[in-house]
Amino acid sequence: MTGIRRAAVIGAGFMGSMHAAILGRAPGCELAAIVDPNLDLARTVAARTSAAKTYASHEELLANEKLDLVSICTPDNLHLAPALAVAKQGVNLFIEKPIASTVEDARAIIAATEAAGVKLGVGYLLRFDPRYGRAKELIDEGKLGRPIHVYARRNSARTEGPKRYGGKLPLALHVTVHDVDLALWLLEGQEPVSVYAQQTDILLGKSGTQDSIAAIVRFSGGTVVNFESAWSLPSGTRHMIDARMEIIGEDGFVEVQCGDSGLHFADATRSQEIDTQHWPERGGAIGGDLREQLHAVLEWLDGADRPIASGRDALRSLELTLAMIRSAETGDVVRLG
Amino acid sequence: MTGIRRAAVIGAGFMGSMHAAILGRAPGCELAAIVDPNLDLARTVAARTSAAKTYASHEELLANEKLDLVSICTPDNLHLAPALAVAKQGVNLFIEKPIASTVEDARAIIAATEAAGVKLGVGYLLRFDPRYGRAKELIDEGKLGRPIHVYARRNSARTEGPKRYGGKLPLALHVTVHDVDLALWLLEGQEPVSVYAQQTDILLGKSGTQDSIAAIVRFSGGTVVNFESAWSLPSGTRHMIDARMEIIGEDGFVEVQCGDSGLHFADATRSQEIDTQHWPERGGAIGGDLREQLHAVLEWLDGADRPIASGRDALRSLELTLAMIRSAETGDVVRLG
Amino acid sequence: MTGIRRAAVIGAGFMGSMHAAILGRAPGCELAAIVDPNLDLARTVAARTSAAKTYASHEELLANEKLDLVSICTPDNLHLAPALAVAKQGVNLFIEKPIASTVEDARAIIAATEAAGVKLGVGYLLRFDPRYGRAKELIDEGKLGRPIHVYARRNSARTEGPKRYGGKLPLALHVTVHDVDLALWLLEGQEPVSVYAQQTDILLGKSGTQDSIAAIVRFSGGTVVNFESAWSLPSGTRHMIDARMEIIGEDGFVEVQCGDSGLHFADATRSQEIDTQHWPERGGAIGGDLREQLHAVLEWLDGADRPIASGRDALRSLELTLAMIRSAETGDVVRLG
Amino acid sequence: MTGIRRAAVIGAGFMGSMHAAILGRAPGCELAAIVDPNLDLARTVAARTSAAKTYASHEELLANEKLDLVSICTPDNLHLAPALAVAKQGVNLFIEKPIASTVEDARAIIAATEAAGVKLGVGYLLRFDPRYGRAKELIDEGKLGRPIHVYARRNSARTEGPKRYGGKLPLALHVTVHDVDLALWLLEGQEPVSVYAQQTDILLGKSGTQDSIAAIVRFSGGTVVNFESAWSLPSGTRHMIDARMEIIGEDGFVEVQCGDSGLHFADATRSQEIDTQHWPERGGAIGGDLREQLHAVLEWLDGADRPIASGRDALRSLELTLAMIRSAETGDVVRLG
Repeated sequence: MTGIRRAAVIGAGFMGSMHAAILGRAPGCELAAIVDPNLDLARTVAARTSAAKTYASHEELLANEKLDLVSICTPDNLHLAPALAVAKQGVNLFIEKPIASTVEDARAIIAATEAAGVKLGVGYLLRFDPRYGRAKELIDEGKLGRPIHVYARRNSARTEGPKRYGGKLPLALHVTVHDVDLALWLLEGQEPVSVYAQQTDILLGKSGTQDSIAAIVRFSGGTVVNFESAWSLPSGTRHMIDARMEIIGEDGFVEVQCGDSGLHFADATRSQEIDTQHWPERGGAIGGDLREQLHAVLEWLDGADRPIASGRDALRSLELTLAMIRSAETGDVVRLG
Repeated sequence: MTGIRRAAVIGAGFMGSMHAAILGRAPGCELAAIVDPNLDLARTVAARTSAAKTYASHEELLANEKLDLVSICTPDNLHLAPALAVAKQGVNLFIEKPIASTVEDARAIIAATEAAGVKLGVGYLLRFDPRYGRAKELIDEGKLGRPIHVYARRNSARTEGPKRYGGKLPLALHVTVHDVDLALWLLEGQEPVSVYAQQTDILLGKSGTQDSIAAIVRFSGGTVVNFESAWSLPSGTRHMIDARMEIIGEDGFVEVQCGDSGLHFADATRSQEIDTQHWPERGGAIGGDLREQLHAVLEWLDGADRPIASGRDALRSLELTLAMIRSAETGDVVRLG
Repeated sequence: MTGIRRAAVIGAGFMGSMHAAILGRAPGCELAAIVDPNLDLARTVAARTSAAKTYASHEELLANEKLDLVSICTPDNLHLAPALAVAKQGVNLFIEKPIASTVEDARAIIAATEAAGVKLGVGYLLRFDPRYGRAKELIDEGKLGRPIHVYARRNSARTEGPKRYGGKLPLALHVTVHDVDLALWLLEGQEPVSVYAQQTDILLGKSGTQDSIAAIVRFSGGTVVNFESAWSLPSGTRHMIDARMEIIGEDGFVEVQCGDSGLHFADATRSQEIDTQHWPERGGAIGGDLREQLHAVLEWLDGADRPIASGRDALRSLELTLAMIRSAETGDVVRLG
Repeated sequence: MTGIRRAAVIGAGFMGSMHAAILGRAPGCELAAIVDPNLDLARTVAARTSAAKTYASHEELLANEKLDLVSICTPDNLHLAPALAVAKQGVNLFIEKPIASTVEDARAIIAATEAAGVKLGVGYLLRFDPRYGRAKELIDEGKLGRPIHVYARRNSARTEGPKRYGGKLPLALHVTVHDVDLALWLLEGQEPVSVYAQQTDILLGKSGTQDSIAAIVRFSGGTVVNFESAWSLPSGTRHMIDARMEIIGEDGFVEVQCGDSGLHFADATRSQEIDTQHWPERGGAIGGDLREQLHAVLEWLDGADRPIASGRDALRSLELTLAMIRSAETGDVVRLG
């Protein structure tokens, strides 16, 4: 370890508060500050972590703190301004997924970090899930041979989207983009050549999002990937997130199954799986994939090779996901590349 | 029961031998004869059942036997001739799925049975599976409300297709067509409006079939169905058939899961699920969905209301499946209706 | 088939009404009458089946009907009187499990049927479940080699026992006895040599039954069987019956899993498995294991070899189960044989 | 963090090499040395970690290094001597489970650490598994109410025991003891009052261990726990470790399921679950429960409250496990306390 890293988190919402909780306890890291225009919220989060200070804007943060890392957890469409400012200051950046809500913003962020010579990572935490991570290794070790067909699911209750993002985002950009990043990562060396999608919005259309999206992407090496995201399971569903990925290769097959989590609870009225994967809290500390990822970010700042999604990776998954949405909206196949 | 029904089976292959085994033991049924151009095969099957006679052709059969029911289990593209002859003779018909390999054949068969005033049923046995069957009832009872999103899988080992049909059929017509029939049945009242599909043939293309097909169908009522058939799992897979169907409705959700069958066997070299659903053999008798279906056929001949796929049902699933194949071959969306 | 069999059902409760529904539709069977001291109940059941007549007592039944089979579905402790009368009349008997609630009653019933030269079968329907049935065959075929260790579970919600039998029976005699019969059947040729059990009654003790029982039985061939029955899962549990059996043999392993049934339903408040095994109803007809068993009884009357539990089989499972209860009550090991 | 902790590992076998790999990368820890009488083995392990030095004995280690922590990973029956020496030197101790193979050794180790005023932790890593850990929290939060019935399984292939410990240990002391520790931890405040067990040794008896053990323990508060450990699954089994724990309480139910790990692999010959829980290796680093535990040990040295099994906890689980073995050997109930 090369000394203590000073970090700040911009955005004190759902993800930002977890970033702060993890960075505030991470070895080799000092959580310098939390930033949110809602200063009360920033203070609440700071009080639960070791963060000494709070600021209402990234300008104030950058004017007052010398930092090694800034984690940006603002709403997707508000990543650009803080990212450009942080990069300009010569500070490394970690941005929650997707990198931005438009390709233009994503490109500007990448350009700014390249110009400034700072690192840029994007929060595709599932690369740090032991199941997806080991699946990637099995592919890289040649255990599957050439991938042929992939199925990637990410379903959840109809109450989760509205709760997490007010139901105001395209489902694909919030949810499917995780599997898009994983597919691009797992199928390293292949480019998407076409995408077709259909979505439904019977339940959640009125709140500005979709019930489900199904998409089929063909890749340059002949692999076909079938994506399914349906955040419209009834509220009594046993699953928090029913995520699966199955990869059929020429020589082998691997199945990641995250829906049945290994921990089930029932009482007089409910029967449900309890998440032990993404960001389980135990004894006040956040664990799971999110912690793995943020610890890996700190090691990567120190030069370690870690599978953190780069800005260019995130641009690719954003482009493919936006094409998927375009197909769903028009009903036509979108040809890529 | 209105007396003993005399039945014959044409085609003494994989399915025909099971039809014979079941009809030969069915209460209220006398299995009169087995027909196959390969008379040795016909005799082998007859010897294992109560069938007294064997014939080399349907002409001989019809010239010699007075029948109430003929079950046609010849290869898909050889259904037409025996079906027309049987109908002309005024005998009821049961034909293995799909009804035929072309729309023209299917229409001709339907026309012949309608002209002759005989019954025509088609072998979509999964309607008689207790899981799919109860799912249909839950929808009909209104427990799910309006269906929104459906996922239908039917995966198997890469060795099953070549073993069952010599790998000489389009995968969709042999396999996906089961789920197409189920979807049309479950979504009664809706028409498919568009279909898009992608398939792969890296492993099995050389033997005239596909490794996998993924398809998305949009229906007139707004429901989207995502079909997946991948008969390319490695030969060591634990599943004989990994079939699932999940239906998200406005009010409820139902999941059919047939992959993990409830009976698992392992020894020094294998670990696999044993089928207890489709046509389990026990004590020499065939049980499961196939038996349920053929017993239901006998009751339906007697006037009972049973959910046997009609000729028109089978025509609809054939048309949609052929459109799916056309989309997969051209890469374009196929608009229907 | 050797003509139509005339059958009657004594006891019009939960099981009796299902026996009637099945026998009333069974090919080769005429359901002659339903008997219950509660004549209204008998009439309700008769109205839902093809039964023409109802009687308030077995004496009336036997005085008025010529029968081939009587199925006794009265409470366990009221099997004796009708069984003796039926046997004396020279009519074949099928009795719901357990054969009786005491060894004395069981012995008297067996003696009466042997004296009268009539058949006696007992309703251990799980022998007709395709999963347990195939497991038995795998053992008989030598696929497992010598059995070493067996685990047998049968858990359910705390509401099921009170609902089904008023909570007035020892849990082991109502529930565990199923697995005891299966174990004795699967381990054919071995005798139990000792049994130890512990039970709990924190929730259901006040209503005269137990929450759970765990038992360990050692057999003469060295096999150890671990039984677990806990009908005390919370009412929100996803399982109707979480039944499993796992058999480790010298050469192979087989696992029967009935808890996750392959059909799952969720809505705004619930998430639960739907039974498709024991006695699923569809379109007004009862299917599943119970129907398989009763159809097999009719074939067995005609001379077919079917794995119906005999009176002596049922005596063995009763004796072992009563020893299990004795151990649970005393806290001591009970040595057998 | 209160400065860098200097640690050493004694025993360079299966567990020792993993302890070294984890401690060698742990933040705030310097892995000073590896000790093994087989110096070549010690050097191999040291070469894969950051350990600078190797010693052939704990005497040499203690004569040459100033340490904060020694982890003892020698065979169970060789824990005593190094533990006493380390404690005498005033160095904190972490000992792999079980603390020792006899109660006398365990008591001597505890006494030595208490006399020396050093910390003593024992390696019951499953307390750090997110599933068992969250189950404990659910109980402590009152979500289950009073525990009534517990089932605890830990099954594995017949090849695992011989591979891991040469088949030379009682199965219960190597395997079941994990669940015994968990049960005592989860049922905090209750004492075991009786234990009964039966074991089999048909396959592995000749190599000095057992195929399976089943045990029933009654606790002072009325809870009954059913333990099952069968390390005799065939070598083709899909499970590395099929571990489960189910706890039925007055108000709720929790199920931990570790057998189906969420990562499944199949190829032409195999179909198996891949462990992602205990000590998954990824990119050369060991993760999972073992890493969680050893990181927690370092925090606990710094004063943090972590659920590390204490010496007294380990003595309790050892005593109960030895009583279980005694019961299995004699066939009698063993009364405790």
